[in-house]
Amino acid sequence: MADRNRRIVLAAVPVGMPREEDFRMEEVAVPVCAANGLLVRTKWVSVDPYLRGRISGVRSYVAPIAVGAVMESGAVGEVVASQDPAFQRGDIVSGFWGWQEFDAVEAAKVQRVDPREAPVSTALGILGMPGMTAYFGLTEVCAPKAGETVVVSGAAGAVGSAVGQIAKILGCRAVGMAGTVAKVNHVKSLGFDDALNYRTDKPYKDVLARMCPKGIDCYFDNVGGEFTDAVLGLMNVRGRVAICGQISQYNDRSLDVGPRPFTPMLVKQLRVEGFLVSRWAGRFGEGREQMAGWLKQGRLRYEETVYEGLESAPRAFIGLFLGENTGKALVSV
Amino acid sequence: MADRNRRIVLAAVPVGMPREEDFRMEEVAVPVCAANGLLVRTKWVSVDPYLRGRISGVRSYVAPIAVGAVMESGAVGEVVASQDPAFQRGDIVSGFWGWQEFDAVEAAKVQRVDPREAPVSTALGILGMPGMTAYFGLTEVCAPKAGETVVVSGAAGAVGSAVGQIAKILGCRAVGMAGTVAKVNHVKSLGFDDALNYRTDKPYKDVLARMCPKGIDCYFDNVGGEFTDAVLGLMNVRGRVAICGQISQYNDRSLDVGPRPFTPMLVKQLRVEGFLVSRWAGRFGEGREQMAGWLKQGRLRYEETVYEGLESAPRAFIGLFLGENTGKALVSV
Repeated sequence: MADRNRRIVLAAVPVGMPREEDFRMEEVAVPVCAANGLLVRTKWVSVDPYLRGRISGVRSYVAPIAVGAVMESGAVGEVVASQDPAFQRGDIVSGFWGWQEFDAVEAAKVQRVDPREAPVSTALGILGMPGMTAYFGLTEVCAPKAGETVVVSGAAGAVGSAVGQIAKILGCRAVGMAGTVAKVNHVKSLGFDDALNYRTDKPYKDVLARMCPKGIDCYFDNVGGEFTDAVLGLMNVRGRVAICGQISQYNDRSLDVGPRPFTPMLVKQLRVEGFLVSRWAGRFGEGREQMAGWLKQGRLRYEETVYEGLESAPRAFIGLFLGENTGKALVSV
Repeated sequence: MADRNRRIVLAAVPVGMPREEDFRMEEVAVPVCAANGLLVRTKWVSVDPYLRGRISGVRSYVAPIAVGAVMESGAVGEVVASQDPAFQRGDIVSGFWGWQEFDAVEAAKVQRVDPREAPVSTALGILGMPGMTAYFGLTEVCAPKAGETVVVSGAAGAVGSAVGQIAKILGCRAVGMAGTVAKVNHVKSLGFDDALNYRTDKPYKDVLARMCPKGIDCYFDNVGGEFTDAVLGLMNVRGRVAICGQISQYNDRSLDVGPRPFTPMLVKQLRVEGFLVSRWAGRFGEGREQMAGWLKQGRLRYEETVYEGLESAPRAFIGLFLGENTGKALVSV
């Protein structure tokens, strides 16, 4: 086993769009496995849009990562030393830990990953946080009924691509929005009934009206901004909106200003709800089982955009905001 | 009985703030009581903010009142002729009919009002549509728990004053917003824990933060605009917002622009829902019983601002947008 541990720390709080210089690679000693703990060798690091909030320097729903501290996110690794009888060397686990080659983690805070079930990277994607976000956000917040129309922004991403496919499984019309022609084609290949290109298919309202001839009953929003304004104008009475992300705003230092949505919400009796997937943490087992079942039946597919090497993690993270990834963005360590 | 019937028709679609010239008094023959119908002599006409939408010339959730047609709204009257065995001359009924001294109505579309229960004008206020709006909007959309903080805009109005009092009955802290010193004092006299003056207590966020030391769990909005922006910034995690009205916008011809609420809604997992009271039409009996009980116990009070004479109806209606009324605005015909 190596005795050196490479890790990536936050070098500076990014202002606006993060830059690679906001991160720094360090080399330190391999951490020591604590009593009842595990030492894991990182195999996969997840980069996710919500991380932007954690390096903004302000407390949101979790404390920020401090300058000089190791970046951390969802990860999958192999147990290389265990002080917990429930885990052996060679076990694959997922959890939240540092962007580093080795980390010492609490055994109680990791989940076992079965490599025979599905590729272990899915524990960070379709069977992990993004998949649970799609499943519970759609079924619990939007609660679409068969025959309804569901619009999904960021439809080529890890969450959005799953949302549209689940909507189809539930018997809905699924319309996606994505940022490139290739992504629009990918979204359609996943079974979405239609998809529009964020950059070129304007005005959104006209394009959406054509793609949603019976109006919009549910909107699963990962993006925000003007696209949301357009969707709200086409919602049917008693429509439901799940606010999952607002990636168009995460690096924007100006105030997010637009038409206030409250008058259309009143006239159409819309319900709009922001959510974090942690709300359903007690039901992740149920969600994973459902999603794994659909995966095995071939009713659910996923894509991964893999960046090679721990050193590529900052680049992978920045890529989220440049629209580089299709499906789940992952770093192979 | 008089053989002439005075009535008020819409003379022009108002542009921006309605003017008295947008309405016209006419004199026509008294309508004929239809088979199975009733002829009623109007005693009270209700003016309500939602009527602004009905004379905007555009279809909203109901068809607009056409230029030249009789204005109509909630009303209370006395049966002067009945072709339905269930009603006798002298019965008091409430329903929706014209701004006129006499109207012919369908017996199936009116409700009997018992003058021994409460003053009959309450069928248009605390025991009528505004009371049901307050009761169901608060209990079903906001669903406050004892100990939570409820903020109400338009707190001196027919709906808002009831919302705050119900919140107090449910064990909440109630904070109201109203437009004059007299209204603020009235709101406090109804038992609200605190109240602020829309015109002078700025910046709203600072004043509200002082009045809501434990943050805001529920917001019942009748007004919209910048006040709503401030409230949203102070909401607690999993807070609930009921959008009942947006009176600050009804006569504003410019687009309602402000900070988009979706990022705070995401971070705090807020649920914001627009509603129309018709959603609970099947439960109005239950709502009236509950509200009448609280009235009898003296736990609920109401105010009326009465305009004298049918000819004052346009003035009463316009007064809604000038903040003239405290409690329910009514026209005594």
